[in-house]
Amino acid sequence: MEEKPVRLDPWASAVKLEYDKLFRYFGIKPFQEVLPRVSQVFGDPLHLMRRGVIFGHRDYDKILEAYKSGERVALVTGFMPSGKFHFGHKMVADQIIYYQKLGFEIFIVIADAEAYAVRKLDRKKVIEIGLYEYVANLIALGLEKNKHTHIYFQTNYEKPYYRLIQMFSRKITMAEMEAIYGDLEPGKVVAALTQAADILHPQLEYFGGFKYVVVPVGADQDPHIRFTRDIADRFENELGLRRPASTYHRFQTGLDGNKMSSSRPDYTIFLSDPVDVAVRKLKRALTGGRATVEEQRRLGGVPENCTIYEFYVYHLLQDDRELARIYSECKEGRLLCGPDKQYAAELLAKFLEEHQRRLEKARDRVLDYVEPPEF
Amino acid sequence: MEEKPVRLDPWASAVKLEYDKLFRYFGIKPFQEVLPRVSQVFGDPLHLMRRGVIFGHRDYDKILEAYKSGERVALVTGFMPSGKFHFGHKMVADQIIYYQKLGFEIFIVIADAEAYAVRKLDRKKVIEIGLYEYVANLIALGLEKNKHTHIYFQTNYEKPYYRLIQMFSRKITMAEMEAIYGDLEPGKVVAALTQAADILHPQLEYFGGFKYVVVPVGADQDPHIRFTRDIADRFENELGLRRPASTYHRFQTGLDGNKMSSSRPDYTIFLSDPVDVAVRKLKRALTGGRATVEEQRRLGGVPENCTIYEFYVYHLLQDDRELARIYSECKEGRLLCGPDKQYAAELLAKFLEEHQRRLEKARDRVLDYVEPPEF
Repeated sequence: MEEKPVRLDPWASAVKLEYDKLFRYFGIKPFQEVLPRVSQVFGDPLHLMRRGVIFGHRDYDKILEAYKSGERVALVTGFMPSGKFHFGHKMVADQIIYYQKLGFEIFIVIADAEAYAVRKLDRKKVIEIGLYEYVANLIALGLEKNKHTHIYFQTNYEKPYYRLIQMFSRKITMAEMEAIYGDLEPGKVVAALTQAADILHPQLEYFGGFKYVVVPVGADQDPHIRFTRDIADRFENELGLRRPASTYHRFQTGLDGNKMSSSRPDYTIFLSDPVDVAVRKLKRALTGGRATVEEQRRLGGVPENCTIYEFYVYHLLQDDRELARIYSECKEGRLLCGPDKQYAAELLAKFLEEHQRRLEKARDRVLDYVEPPEF
Repeated sequence: MEEKPVRLDPWASAVKLEYDKLFRYFGIKPFQEVLPRVSQVFGDPLHLMRRGVIFGHRDYDKILEAYKSGERVALVTGFMPSGKFHFGHKMVADQIIYYQKLGFEIFIVIADAEAYAVRKLDRKKVIEIGLYEYVANLIALGLEKNKHTHIYFQTNYEKPYYRLIQMFSRKITMAEMEAIYGDLEPGKVVAALTQAADILHPQLEYFGGFKYVVVPVGADQDPHIRFTRDIADRFENELGLRRPASTYHRFQTGLDGNKMSSSRPDYTIFLSDPVDVAVRKLKRALTGGRATVEEQRRLGGVPENCTIYEFYVYHLLQDDRELARIYSECKEGRLLCGPDKQYAAELLAKFLEEHQRRLEKARDRVLDYVEPPEF
């Protein structure tokens, strides 16, 4: 065989190809550079960090140093309650819970204002989905309720948060916003300012005073991060705001190889999918298999192109050695797609069964975690 | 003499010339048409109504009918805390207090967000002026504290108010806003939506439920009223909002015949001006006098062009007969500008002395009326 010995760095080349320009042109830095320090400061890195799913960052070193020296640190993230909670969302949930266990303060926004004003969704539906899909799944995945964990709806929060939206509107121009958002409607203008307030408000005195903030986002969200960092700079003197740090993660691929999204339910596995439905979707998934069994035995599969393998990496396997074994066996043509899918389906079914038991209970507890808007 | 007998309708011609197109093209109706009904329903009309200073309205008949049949009614108005409180503001204050005495609920917004974001004023200064100029003068002029009177800063109010700003952003377009506001910056977009929330929020359940709302404004503010009425229409089903009624008042003229404005302090009398300063400004004021005393005795003065006479009409004289006497004597050349200014100065001095005594006490009470933002 002419291929190099297998190493557990399955995404390295893909990352290079796809995200290299983020490193080169936008100042995002490779996450692997801070990974050794993560181990020193936090202990075990999250599997998404180890496996290169989280591939980039801005100012993450500042978060590590702040944490190490006992300063206050917070994670801020949000969900658009526009559809059901799927495995792409779980990737964010895993990060939230990882940081919560480390002792980070947690701020989670349910972007109901944006869902209503920009996506033009029904408001009642949005609130319901926010509660019974997003918050409930976070709880079922292990989000603890504690005094440092704040979940809120954009339309049901505190005065100083809204004050920021008003104040931020002073120091940006339409041209700056158009460069990021393209054609602007009033809804988008308000949503962008609101998003900046979502990210920056935890630093205010009212919300407990200054803390270092990290925002985990998908790579496509970096313009928002840059926009918010600019606003932080402009309000550094007046409000004491500092730039947020950020990490960048790969998207989860849909089961047909395109985007995983609520709007493509056939290629997206929701955490509330009945187990048989989820398994059926998984079994139809695009793999990195060859045209014939004979060919696959001879050349090996291509796990880099396999949505099943991605599922192992992102969700189904915590153990790196087992992941490496599957990777090797696939590459070497010893593990074929049929049995592999069967194995993944078993892991998925097991996960979903347990999760859905927790989810059912979690749905009774959402109001302990968040106060929904009255209308 | 070729002139017609004097009648007490000093503004009729001016109103016609200046405001006719508001009636013709924009659907504003002459206030004098509802004036008899005002007397029937409210009793004595405010002097500004009787004298045509309030010259136009939209849907005021609905306010009268609602009041008559015991339904809930409210006045909404606001102040931009960008400079000191002057007699142009007093005209609005007189209306507020008139409606408060009738039992209207009162909502007064201090537009500190707009002052900061659009006018780009210093935030601390804006809050201070809001409290110690606007609120204090309103109290000194007679605004009572009661459970139906609400004064608030835009950056320090209740959740459902901010929710409206977010929601309104969905159902308007940039083109609609540009038609009213011209070139838009994010600050203006947010300010316009906020102003609509200022006017419409009193109808929400949270703020006590539906009430008929009237907004007294200067004629130049009608585009905002139309904009807000459009928004009300678009949220009639979803939020139960109804169009506000409005009244339109003439501007007070500056003492040089141009605009009265904080930015032109030499031609504007502030209610906190030391009496001698105020009197000195008044004595320099532009009058409707003739070139020579001889000419004035022969032709009479022109009270319609006289800023002193306007001061009588708007502020200094409550008694219509006395006003009519001065008007006649001026028209007939019997009252010259010197003695007339002297008389006005005496009335002004008397008013200011009493007012400033009350103002000093009122400044200690502003925090009973309104909660200022913390930052």
